[in-house]
Amino acid sequence: MAGPTFQALPGFRDFTPSECAVRNYLFETWRGVARRCGYVEYETPVLEDTGLYLKKSGGELSSQLFRFEDQGGRDVTLRPEVTASLARLIAQHQRDFPKPLKWFEIGQCFRYEKPQKGRGREFHQFNVDIFGEAGPAADAELIALAIETMLAFGFEAGDFVVRVSDRMAWIDFAAANGIAEESIPEFLGIIDKIEREKPEVLAQKLAAFSLTPEGVRAFIADPANASAAYLAIREDLAARGFADFVELDLSIVRGLAYYTGVVFEVFDSKKSMRAVAGGGRYDTLISTISEGAVDLPATGFAMGDYVIRNLIEETAHAAMQMEVWLQRNSAACDVFVVVADDSKRAESLKLVTDLRRAGISADLPLAPAKVGKQFQRAEQSGARFALVVGAEYPELKLKILASRTEETGTAENAVEWITDRIHQPDGPLLA
Amino acid sequence: MAGPTFQALPGFRDFTPSECAVRNYLFETWRGVARRCGYVEYETPVLEDTGLYLKKSGGELSSQLFRFEDQGGRDVTLRPEVTASLARLIAQHQRDFPKPLKWFEIGQCFRYEKPQKGRGREFHQFNVDIFGEAGPAADAELIALAIETMLAFGFEAGDFVVRVSDRMAWIDFAAANGIAEESIPEFLGIIDKIEREKPEVLAQKLAAFSLTPEGVRAFIADPANASAAYLAIREDLAARGFADFVELDLSIVRGLAYYTGVVFEVFDSKKSMRAVAGGGRYDTLISTISEGAVDLPATGFAMGDYVIRNLIEETAHAAMQMEVWLQRNSAACDVFVVVADDSKRAESLKLVTDLRRAGISADLPLAPAKVGKQFQRAEQSGARFALVVGAEYPELKLKILASRTEETGTAENAVEWITDRIHQPDGPLLA
Repeated sequence: MAGPTFQALPGFRDFTPSECAVRNYLFETWRGVARRCGYVEYETPVLEDTGLYLKKSGGELSSQLFRFEDQGGRDVTLRPEVTASLARLIAQHQRDFPKPLKWFEIGQCFRYEKPQKGRGREFHQFNVDIFGEAGPAADAELIALAIETMLAFGFEAGDFVVRVSDRMAWIDFAAANGIAEESIPEFLGIIDKIEREKPEVLAQKLAAFSLTPEGVRAFIADPANASAAYLAIREDLAARGFADFVELDLSIVRGLAYYTGVVFEVFDSKKSMRAVAGGGRYDTLISTISEGAVDLPATGFAMGDYVIRNLIEETAHAAMQMEVWLQRNSAACDVFVVVADDSKRAESLKLVTDLRRAGISADLPLAPAKVGKQFQRAEQSGARFALVVGAEYPELKLKILASRTEETGTAENAVEWITDRIHQPDGPLLA
Repeated sequence: MAGPTFQALPGFRDFTPSECAVRNYLFETWRGVARRCGYVEYETPVLEDTGLYLKKSGGELSSQLFRFEDQGGRDVTLRPEVTASLARLIAQHQRDFPKPLKWFEIGQCFRYEKPQKGRGREFHQFNVDIFGEAGPAADAELIALAIETMLAFGFEAGDFVVRVSDRMAWIDFAAANGIAEESIPEFLGIIDKIEREKPEVLAQKLAAFSLTPEGVRAFIADPANASAAYLAIREDLAARGFADFVELDLSIVRGLAYYTGVVFEVFDSKKSMRAVAGGGRYDTLISTISEGAVDLPATGFAMGDYVIRNLIEETAHAAMQMEVWLQRNSAACDVFVVVADDSKRAESLKLVTDLRRAGISADLPLAPAKVGKQFQRAEQSGARFALVVGAEYPELKLKILASRTEETGTAENAVEWITDRIHQPDGPLLA
């Protein structure tokens, strides 16, 4: 027997029910944290005018785009990230909302990269942004949300750290070291790769600015170089009880050209120091995207689904919390109706319908089957209860599958009875 | 001042928070109904090998595809529908699951059509399918879900009707009228357009099969032509209390080539007889997609977000239900902390953090502002409560914004106090 012909494209995922449940755990946790922190949800299109991305990123992402010409001859691109669309949306609609705006989106993004562990050609991203507040309180509020997100996934102190930096510190450094303004992007690009670059290449690149790796490293290591914004953020987060989760790290500048101030990354502190999320201030992007029509300060961050999932699975207490959620949400139904006497099929259909209407998840076999087979199916469905409809109808039996105990009731008040029963714990019932 | 440069592509939607809330209402209702009826969620990729669609549809959709060559030279397409991907997924994974499988997906699809009211170039679709059960009980279970979905949106008897047909009735008709098997798809194509075709063209096309419009219409009108499957489905749905929602309509054959038996459409019965959803049995598709490796009977249906939303908005009781949901879910937070004395900002940050940790949605101003301005912001946020932190800290005031009443409490037990308060109704409190 030949295998199926078609496969998902490389780097694209099929979410079978068990994988989809993990996805839903991530989405529900993200959505829950964002709402608790006063952010409202929006969504932008997955396909956009390519110019939007070229304008925003200065071409950095252009080699990774799913870019094509549509049937109307438009140059279009599957979004590699959400911020460009968001900046467009905000520029168009910001007048309708009081400031500051606190918005979030959970959306899929697409990049043509080599698929590998922890990276696909599509991924889901949790994007959170604050518009209309230029002060460090907005950055602190955003970093607090990043910390709340990690805590909501069950991570604890010691599992992760938020490393905060400020491009303004580097702008000051550049000025003090005679680096021309137009060379700053290039200079920041060197800083961005300082830990990954070969020593001799690094030395050579810095020499072009009359700098040495030692001099730059000394600047990074000196806490006196923290910006005023960083100090304000730290004080704000300390008031929230989050001091232990934050540290200064001037080596972080973030690759993308559009960041203008405070930048930060959330790191897995246990294992490989992977960045789980990152973001920062981008006060000029909306003006750039809108060609000067709208000018609004902004700060935002994003967390992808690949790295956070891996980190959850590698961290015992976070993995356990996810497992408990998945267990609780894995049942296809709560009540599985066993049609013990097929002449009672019509009655069984009515019962299932009444239960569903009352908000109870209920199912039944679609074809006649032996009672033992139906109970097996009930177990497989993950149902807590099997409701047995047999020759003694309207008398019904409700079997609690975990404890293998049972109760008896009647069809007339089945909905009230089972609704009531479902809110009680399992276990052998007193007679 | 020039307007913003970039716009969403024609036929693509920006979901601002109020539009996103409507989307969430549709999604949560779909998801809730599917779970209540024992279906589990999956998701397939939005981008697929183009061959998957060409193989499935016989090319019908090919003029509407967002189709392109990716950076690896693959012929890929943004999914115009979900069933082809699902058939692939089922063919690959069906061995892992007991039958029948009851699966649902809420996903975005893309078709390059002329954007108009009720149709965009992207849309969200609720897809529900049952695999591994060939009998009419599966079709009835699926139609029951379609009816439950309409009821969940607040539609009532008289608002909609499910018109059910069976291609098998037409196969029998074709055999009795000497239509060759290979001509049946062409013949069904004529039946599919019988109400939209010009009378003279229709007569001419039917004449090629030695048939007349009158003869075909007489066949459609005669209830004796209902198939055995239809009668079984009707009996099943009547047992559920759904008899009034179903009627025989043999003029329905559904355009797509892959349907093999029972087909149905949900119609808006009040206004324009628009199809709100449709589906049917496709017992050979999985075998086609898997090149014979897997053979599994299937029945499924889909509902798009455009038509159902329009119908909700045009139907007073359904619109009212949505409005109530949107009102309940429109607040950016439940508790807005008013920092009446800015020297208590640290204490306010701590309170907001504690409330959020307790699962309460809480927010505060990011910059110092006059108390009146902060209250205005609290009102705009839709919060039920304003928690006032002033010079008298740790004494706090909790203002109920709707009733303009207030209570007093202390910071130490603020979380218990407010958690308790949030579960009580509004209104003036007794002293």
